[in-house]
Amino acid sequence: MEPWQLTAAAAAAKLQDGSLTAEALTRSCLERCAEREPITKALVFLDAELAIRNARRVDKAYAKGVLHGLPLGVKDMIDTADMPTTHNSPLYAGLQQGRDAACVGVARGEGAVVFGKTDTVEFAAAGRRALTRNPHDVTRTPGGSSSGSAAAVAEGMVPIAFGTQTGGSTIRPASFCGVYAMKPTHGVVNSEGAKRYSHTLDTIGWYGRSPADLHLVARAFRLFGTEAPVAKSVGGLRIGLCRGPHWNIAAPESQEAVLTAAKRLEAAGAVVEDMVLPDAFDEISRAHHIVLHGEGRGAFLQEFLAAPGLLHQDFHDRALNKEGITPRDMVWAYDHAAACRRLFDAVFPGYDAVLTPAAAGEAPVGRQDTGNPIFNSMWTLLHVPCIGIPCITGPNGVPVGVQIIGPRMGDAALLDVAAAVAPVVDAA
Amino acid sequence: MEPWQLTAAAAAAKLQDGSLTAEALTRSCLERCAEREPITKALVFLDAELAIRNARRVDKAYAKGVLHGLPLGVKDMIDTADMPTTHNSPLYAGLQQGRDAACVGVARGEGAVVFGKTDTVEFAAAGRRALTRNPHDVTRTPGGSSSGSAAAVAEGMVPIAFGTQTGGSTIRPASFCGVYAMKPTHGVVNSEGAKRYSHTLDTIGWYGRSPADLHLVARAFRLFGTEAPVAKSVGGLRIGLCRGPHWNIAAPESQEAVLTAAKRLEAAGAVVEDMVLPDAFDEISRAHHIVLHGEGRGAFLQEFLAAPGLLHQDFHDRALNKEGITPRDMVWAYDHAAACRRLFDAVFPGYDAVLTPAAAGEAPVGRQDTGNPIFNSMWTLLHVPCIGIPCITGPNGVPVGVQIIGPRMGDAALLDVAAAVAPVVDAA
Repeated sequence: MEPWQLTAAAAAAKLQDGSLTAEALTRSCLERCAEREPITKALVFLDAELAIRNARRVDKAYAKGVLHGLPLGVKDMIDTADMPTTHNSPLYAGLQQGRDAACVGVARGEGAVVFGKTDTVEFAAAGRRALTRNPHDVTRTPGGSSSGSAAAVAEGMVPIAFGTQTGGSTIRPASFCGVYAMKPTHGVVNSEGAKRYSHTLDTIGWYGRSPADLHLVARAFRLFGTEAPVAKSVGGLRIGLCRGPHWNIAAPESQEAVLTAAKRLEAAGAVVEDMVLPDAFDEISRAHHIVLHGEGRGAFLQEFLAAPGLLHQDFHDRALNKEGITPRDMVWAYDHAAACRRLFDAVFPGYDAVLTPAAAGEAPVGRQDTGNPIFNSMWTLLHVPCIGIPCITGPNGVPVGVQIIGPRMGDAALLDVAAAVAPVVDAA
Repeated sequence: MEPWQLTAAAAAAKLQDGSLTAEALTRSCLERCAEREPITKALVFLDAELAIRNARRVDKAYAKGVLHGLPLGVKDMIDTADMPTTHNSPLYAGLQQGRDAACVGVARGEGAVVFGKTDTVEFAAAGRRALTRNPHDVTRTPGGSSSGSAAAVAEGMVPIAFGTQTGGSTIRPASFCGVYAMKPTHGVVNSEGAKRYSHTLDTIGWYGRSPADLHLVARAFRLFGTEAPVAKSVGGLRIGLCRGPHWNIAAPESQEAVLTAAKRLEAAGAVVEDMVLPDAFDEISRAHHIVLHGEGRGAFLQEFLAAPGLLHQDFHDRALNKEGITPRDMVWAYDHAAACRRLFDAVFPGYDAVLTPAAAGEAPVGRQDTGNPIFNSMWTLLHVPCIGIPCITGPNGVPVGVQIIGPRMGDAALLDVAAAVAPVVDAA
């Protein structure tokens, strides 16, 4: 087994006990990139010498952090002090920031090897798509906007990578690429240094190839309770099966993934119950749309004024408020979201987690359609933690995942549930 | 009259009609700085040649923006592409970012002359204080954390400047320095590129020497409705006089300022009524404290890991959660704030604005105590727009202001009220 094939958690064990060095793992990942990157196009910046220098710096550290020696892919709308951050925008081609984004700084502080930058939808929002291809079928999208991060982890180019989620930009690509992902409670990871689209929604997330990988990153960020994981068994877990307001637009394979996960969990001794959201949730996607476009109005004003000719029409539409969002709409959406957050949290501790689709179906064919985020955006607005778990293979032979969801600030407990259920749900 | 003596609005009129150039105004401001900066110490970075180059670039522009030709001071925790951003932290001494913060980019896009960086409390949060002195009494603080921006505008070094407010960092210094200030509705101005302390609270604000100055900046940011100001007369305005939960800790001069403003408004024909906040507001400052310290826990983790020895103890306390904030506290505080936001908005349209203290008293003596933010922090948490207006001179001969407040997203209407009431309230 080559080092690049190790999950982050398996590699971390070897890195901590000294049987693997950061440099050896980084070189192995570089070899994997040499093989796969020409096909997958996950990375927009990779300087092998720089990656190795970063690894050697970690190998010389006095103390080993939680992420010691793990190569990290960084979505290219998150600032890095030693690599350009281009946002997939011609406006920022070659842009070099002076300091790391907060999440990159924390990861570096915990010993991660900043490895390279991963392709993204323009500003993680709209406009230009990533060039990245789905590792399971090069004719399909890996999803977006965290296209390169999801694909790079799926390919073994890096064991962990950062994405972001404003609608469905972290969990949906995980489903399409067959990897694990976490979108934590909004705000618990400082998003400073990542391009802002909507301050109410933007959330740093991350990818791995096991639930333990996700836990490592959560620990690095000091998420409440993650320093003391609780081993849970599937037997006795209470899972709420939530079809949600959009079940009818889920493709058969997405419905099948959720129902298969439920069956596997019941077979393993969990209690799975249908859970119906209160009527207020019928308006939750409309509230998300208003917040997204209302906050998006100011998000790209800088670029709109600086160089409109270098800015995709999608961002002109945002700056010019093409959706016609009003101040009254915004206040309604904020208050509606706040009310729904309380309602959803009240579901717990009746359940240990809620199970729901991670995407609308398999990854679409082509590069333009990165998939429908509607099975993610409501959870993003609710600020709740979400963990994507691979589940089945769809009719076209590409992965289809599910997600589990907890209450706000319940990140640690949700990671514990994920560790318990993943071997059952991801049983293919 | 020298150009530096003009308010932003007065200068803008001349800049627009061509009777004043950006370079001439910038040179005048530089002369004012040469005279006052050795005493006031408002600026941490001023390169006269760079300021003039920026002015000449504006003078050559094809079209004139809303802020055309106006020298702009930028708080030194807001990124600038052509000047260092040091956050008053030894960790970031000399830091050069590659792009402007969003607010700076918008101002530049609207023709502002980025003039220099103003001193700030470390990370606009705690730790090291600015060196800045109060322009009205050099033995006193100008307030913080936007110390240099408030003082620079008061001195005439610049006509406008950016601050930020997480507790009381914009409105309180305005009161201490005798200038106008606006903290808009949270989130309507993109805070990307300003150091993050609390994403729920951090708000970009600005200073001027007249309500019309504040309006110019609001227009640059496309705040809803600011493109069509409505001339209001004081007669018939309904003002809610809100003592709030902390009236008893307001010094006599702060109480006097509010009561004087109320009397002046009544004399001018406004209806001023006592307004009592619902009981829920008794807990609003506790909710602010929890959000501030709870979100502050993650805000400085990057710096804590990178170089703890270069980080003030205050930030160690944040990263280590010295306040012992729990996940349950956080959820309570978020939900309590959301409930209070709805309650406060319901006061409108019964009133045109709410009148309340801007600070706890006169500017304290010395540099360490930048004043109590308690008369600001609750409004910051409520996300409502606040405008600081000078009012009286305190017993020690330094200014004491008041603030008026509107509902969320009601920025334009509040600016219209400010334009009407300022000549009455600021009558000294």
